Amino acid sequence: MFASGENHVFPRCACCNPMFFAASAGPASGASAPTNIEALEGSKRAAGPKINGPVIDCHGHYTTEPRALLDWRKRQIAAINDPRQRPSVDELKISDDELRASVENAQLRLQRERGTSVTLFSPRASGMSHHIGDASVSADWSRVSNDLIYRLTQLYPKNFVGVCQLPQSPGVAPENCIGELVRCVAELGFVGCNLNPDPSGGYWTDPPSTDRWWYPFYEKMVELDVPAMIHVSAAANRAFHTTGSHYINGDTTAFMQFLMSDLFKDFPTLRFIIPHGGGAIPYHWGRYRGIAQDQKKPSLSELVLKNVFFDTCVYHQPGIDLLTRVIPAENILFASEMLGAVKGIDPETGYNFDDTRRYIEASTILSVEDKRAIFAGNARRIYPRMRGF
Amino acid sequence: MFASGENHVFPRCACCNPMFFAASAGPASGASAPTNIEALEGSKRAAGPKINGPVIDCHGHYTTEPRALLDWRKRQIAAINDPRQRPSVDELKISDDELRASVENAQLRLQRERGTSVTLFSPRASGMSHHIGDASVSADWSRVSNDLIYRLTQLYPKNFVGVCQLPQSPGVAPENCIGELVRCVAELGFVGCNLNPDPSGGYWTDPPSTDRWWYPFYEKMVELDVPAMIHVSAAANRAFHTTGSHYINGDTTAFMQFLMSDLFKDFPTLRFIIPHGGGAIPYHWGRYRGIAQDQKKPSLSELVLKNVFFDTCVYHQPGIDLLTRVIPAENILFASEMLGAVKGIDPETGYNFDDTRRYIEASTILSVEDKRAIFAGNARRIYPRMRGF
Repeated sequence: MFASGENHVFPRCACCNPMFFAASAGPASGASAPTNIEALEGSKRAAGPKINGPVIDCHGHYTTEPRALLDWRKRQIAAINDPRQRPSVDELKISDDELRASVENAQLRLQRERGTSVTLFSPRASGMSHHIGDASVSADWSRVSNDLIYRLTQLYPKNFVGVCQLPQSPGVAPENCIGELVRCVAELGFVGCNLNPDPSGGYWTDPPSTDRWWYPFYEKMVELDVPAMIHVSAAANRAFHTTGSHYINGDTTAFMQFLMSDLFKDFPTLRFIIPHGGGAIPYHWGRYRGIAQDQKKPSLSELVLKNVFFDTCVYHQPGIDLLTRVIPAENILFASEMLGAVKGIDPETGYNFDDTRRYIEASTILSVEDKRAIFAGNARRIYPRMRGF
Repeated sequence: MFASGENHVFPRCACCNPMFFAASAGPASGASAPTNIEALEGSKRAAGPKINGPVIDCHGHYTTEPRALLDWRKRQIAAINDPRQRPSVDELKISDDELRASVENAQLRLQRERGTSVTLFSPRASGMSHHIGDASVSADWSRVSNDLIYRLTQLYPKNFVGVCQLPQSPGVAPENCIGELVRCVAELGFVGCNLNPDPSGGYWTDPPSTDRWWYPFYEKMVELDVPAMIHVSAAANRAFHTTGSHYINGDTTAFMQFLMSDLFKDFPTLRFIIPHGGGAIPYHWGRYRGIAQDQKKPSLSELVLKNVFFDTCVYHQPGIDLLTRVIPAENILFASEMLGAVKGIDPETGYNFDDTRRYIEASTILSVEDKRAIFAGNARRIYPRMRGF
């Protein structure tokens, strides 16, 4: 049912398109004049002072993979209906030099330019495409993808910490992913995982994230003391744009599932990061407070904020200001999603849209202590297996 | 495929639960003390001065229907597999007194208390449930629902202006809805319609809103000069909470479809209102500006803001402040969604969450002229068939 053509693997959107990375980064020379309502805001807000101390980016994807990985995946997909043609995990050959070349002028250069200390690094989110093939296809694909992340963490132990892709597949119990989680955490030193609440790619055919269907996997997360970032993958449903609506909807949907459930009574130490600033949640915080109240539930602080955290992948100052105004600083983790959904330079600021550090530093809402917590302290607490940063 | 039990018609969420309306409204006596991060914001922001002039609420649903209507619908659903048992449209008997009683202590009282001049009034959004039965079921259900709205506009011509439900059905071309649209607009004096971008109720099985599948219907909208509010209905997919995630996701999804399309080149005068403050869109305005730029598209002002408008159904001050900071005032229409998704009183303000007039009046971002445009001027422009307000 979910076997798909190549167009579902690497759609044309920026986040999904291999080799999309453009050399341009940093302040734009000759950026066009501001043209819309945000221009006024942009000009009003000077960059804030640099915050001393480490900056941990909790949301980075390996979106500059060597061509050999993408070719391996294409062969794997082409062989879905003819398993004898399926490439083995061992057939993928990528040298250390190729790995270095793939990140040196991309993630590593941007880390230096933006002052990021370390990135929690995982395979391309849209590339997971759990809707393609079956669980065995996802298992091999996860293994080769996670192994490359591991090698990068070994080549650059100060720059990258591993977060794993899981071999999810529609209709297959998440318990099936425990083996790869344990391998990545216990053997490869990874500190978290990306958990897809909708392996079908936009049809939402599996049980909600709060169903007991997911409980064995959550038990293992708790045992290993690793959090999961809630992250859907490429949209296979043409109603959705992968990075523009499916990602954001996935975030909103998962939060609402948590709100309506008793999941965190059953797992008081389970921790989720909802990326992209929590989808629509902070913007509609009053709606969610009101729904919880109508349902006779405790306040959202009690109900979800001990277990749910939001990242800062919100690509403009007003959005970050809203996030930091309504969500306690202790629930916010710095992230840029680079190289991710938006690669360009904002003509209204002259800086990359995803240079999110600037928005945090420019915030007049957050204290210096809040900013330090968002940049590093919170990540250390939420990812206790990450050591030395 | 989409025939469903009663649980899909009136789920337990507030917006969908018939007779949920509680007598409490207005300032709370003994509201509990503020408990979370917004308390500080709430106490900082005094209510702004009342804005003189009309207040047009562009988003109100008939969520206090007489029991007879709900019973009729139950009989209709029970007869889906036995059409001989299906109730006829003429069998529904509701007196004018019953209609008056259903709104006098609800919408009309709140209009008086909140100073709303008139409400653009449509059937309960979650009740549309286009996924139930087939197109003939939707046709009868739309007809009885719209006829009640019409009678209310006749009983209270100064309080209600009609907006119609459409007889959509999954897999059935929207062209099929033209007859009911024409009937409501040309014969009953309605000024707009609610258009469901996902008649499947959360499976998103129909073509995107920008597909030529929808064009004949858009041609009729243009000819009649009526806008559509993009509004999904009850979630039939258990992944979604109807008012908490499905509604918001529907808004975000439709906007992203518009952004990626040439729809407004084909229909320069087509107009959509995206409710619930535009879903996640304003919060991620930088993301959408960036995606459009990456796609070599014009600015969002050029691309969508001549045709797409957002309502103010955002239930807290920080959300409204974000909305008004990034979206031009001329693209914002006042709305409360009352009686809608959240019925309670915000303990942090002492007023109903959905008393959105207060947030607009308290805004320090908007000028008095902006506020007047949001309260009335924009609605007059977007709904040109509404006259006398």
